[in-house]
Amino acid sequence: MRVRVELWPRGPYPDVAVLVDVLRASTSIGLLLARGAREVWVTGSLRAAREFPADLRLAEREGLPPEGFHHGTSPVELLRLPAAGLRVVYTSENLPRALDLTRGARAVFLAGLRNARAAAGAAARAARQEVAVVAVGHRGREALDDVLGAGFLAKKLLRSLPGAEPDDGARIAASLLRAFPDPQEALWQSASGRLLRSLGQAEDLAQASLIARDPAAPRLAGLERHRGRTLYRFVADEPD
Amino acid sequence: MRVRVELWPRGPYPDVAVLVDVLRASTSIGLLLARGAREVWVTGSLRAAREFPADLRLAEREGLPPEGFHHGTSPVELLRLPAAGLRVVYTSENLPRALDLTRGARAVFLAGLRNARAAAGAAARAARQEVAVVAVGHRGREALDDVLGAGFLAKKLLRSLPGAEPDDGARIAASLLRAFPDPQEALWQSASGRLLRSLGQAEDLAQASLIARDPAAPRLAGLERHRGRTLYRFVADEPD
Repeated sequence: MRVRVELWPRGPYPDVAVLVDVLRASTSIGLLLARGAREVWVTGSLRAAREFPADLRLAEREGLPPEGFHHGTSPVELLRLPAAGLRVVYTSENLPRALDLTRGARAVFLAGLRNARAAAGAAARAARQEVAVVAVGHRGREALDDVLGAGFLAKKLLRSLPGAEPDDGARIAASLLRAFPDPQEALWQSASGRLLRSLGQAEDLAQASLIARDPAAPRLAGLERHRGRTLYRFVADEPD
Repeated sequence: MRVRVELWPRGPYPDVAVLVDVLRASTSIGLLLARGAREVWVTGSLRAAREFPADLRLAEREGLPPEGFHHGTSPVELLRLPAAGLRVVYTSENLPRALDLTRGARAVFLAGLRNARAAAGAAARAARQEVAVVAVGHRGREALDDVLGAGFLAKKLLRSLPGAEPDDGARIAASLLRAFPDPQEALWQSASGRLLRSLGQAEDLAQASLIARDPAAPRLAGLERHRGRTLYRFVADEPD
């Protein structure tokens, strides 16, 4: 078994891919499913998200939900919302590009810090040859929060898969854990974290840095095309 | 001024790009120019390298020079060769892909650990808006030795350019310096280092990990097409 980490998404992923977008898609979607949401559909298009049938529409631009959306995508806000049984549509700036690279993967999961344990377990159960842990990045660049999260995942996977060998990406990501013993410090320094702090959403960083809080590993369970845009469906992975 | 680090080459680079391939192209080419080579032409094609007019032809496959080449590309071997005044052609597996992404850059340098100080100085003098430090990678993956080298460069640049801001890539690369206080340990663990060790070339790692030994920053000074392949010409950068 191989455990490799991509510090920037390239693909392809022939076996299992775990996408890490700590601030904030992996965190918020994991949290929604942990709180009982039936499914979360992910898209990069505000228009597709507006038109797609859903109980709860989430998007954020400059800290606010655009017209036609119920709420933003802050995990702090989502912790307060009723989610049980809902069909949610979630608009993400960075995640869709990485999702587009997962065609051909046998299984795809999302992981943040809050659901790292659940995601590592789900990925280890699903994998046959390799788990590719993918740091999603932020606005066309590598993201410190995502590479740190990928380091957590890689470390958990290497512990749970006997004989698994890390690649250089996994070594680099895991060494960030030594450089940042407090993960919240890495989130604080990251470009995503700076942006959220500038928007008055510093509390998101505290929520996103809680380790292994949420039991749900979001698992890709299908996709749909809507007016030329792809929407990806995530559900909570159920251990066999 | 911005200092950014790409952990994996993507481009474009509108201003200054510094390509880091510690094991071994940046190290060996810097060493050849420091020892007085007139110019070093870089290509990925054995055939183009064989046919291109040169005094010294360097390439390596599985630890040995292929037919038609004078020597391999080991810095240990190159330290022993006379290089002064020579026109050298150097075959590299990983560097050409990154070089192909530098079209449009105002200036391009190569940097390893041995010539990090010279390369950081040359890049700082040439830059107007940003220096992009690019970890070249190894066989389609991020490389631990190159990301560590990029961290060295970024740290030197951030010190010498007052007010320069690091991006997340620079923060990640620089944090490797804390995780690996002895750079040779990172080279030892890296996939490139493992490959060289398996070929009996462990001494290359010691030579490549010497900090700021060589005074020459290889600077891209032109290119030529030969039978559909590009050869890139490097010369020693001369401070104004």
